[in-house]
Amino acid sequence: MTGFTSYMGAALEEAQLAAGRGEVPVGAVLVSPQGDILAQAGNRTRELNDPSAHAEVLVIREACAKLGQERLPGCELWVTLEPCPMCAMLISSARIARLIYAASDPKSGGIEQGPCIYSHAQAHHVPEVIDGVREPEAAALLRDFFAQRRSS
Amino acid sequence: MTGFTSYMGAALEEAQLAAGRGEVPVGAVLVSPQGDILAQAGNRTRELNDPSAHAEVLVIREACAKLGQERLPGCELWVTLEPCPMCAMLISSARIARLIYAASDPKSGGIEQGPCIYSHAQAHHVPEVIDGVREPEAAALLRDFFAQRRSS
Repeated sequence: MTGFTSYMGAALEEAQLAAGRGEVPVGAVLVSPQGDILAQAGNRTRELNDPSAHAEVLVIREACAKLGQERLPGCELWVTLEPCPMCAMLISSARIARLIYAASDPKSGGIEQGPCIYSHAQAHHVPEVIDGVREPEAAALLRDFFAQRRSS
Repeated sequence: MTGFTSYMGAALEEAQLAAGRGEVPVGAVLVSPQGDILAQAGNRTRELNDPSAHAEVLVIREACAKLGQERLPGCELWVTLEPCPMCAMLISSARIARLIYAASDPKSGGIEQGPCIYSHAQAHHVPEVIDGVREPEAAALLRDFFAQRRSS
């Protein structure tokens, strides 16, 4: 694992940009086995009218299209928030090697919450999971976003 | 619930077409509250190099784009196989009213298997679920597909 700070930094920037677009501020970065950023994105569900357009889905789709393959073995996914069950399952299907996320998401997360996607036999590949990386920054972004929405 | 046979019939046709393209034979149909088919599709993960391109995801994305909204309240999703956890979660996020599927999927399903997506608080909307509709036909399609793949 390289670029410990900078990959999550890029994901945090994407989260900030998403907030600016009125989207839930979550950002993700897809990193190749060689350490290159293959794709980076923030949520775009509102803009695209697409409930599947979470940051994780967007970077996985873009990286797969770029590489011309439907799996991403050896790749890392860096994301500012614990993935939801949809994204958690897609990360497994795409055979991503390692998932690194910042803040936990008790309300909608799918890794350490409720459905705990990777703890069942229906996940045919389980990535290595590292959590808590730059958690305070990601959590602050989300807190500010929802506080502002409530007050506006 | 109307069109009990014909909606699943259209989904089964999409599954058959998917098999012809070398894709796992699953088909889905998205039906409006008025009973109109908004989208129908079969799996295209191989063709599109997109691990998210399950039949359910494709019809939800297409229907949302068509209607210009990121939720599909009152709509029904008809699909030939029990949705995986990714699709199950997306069906919830899209606020689909009713999910009707044919065959169960012990290996990869997310409704009545392992993660049981709708039995946790992280699913903020739970659709009505009806299973077993035209199950023998859907199961036969899958059985034939995998038997042929093993023998080729």
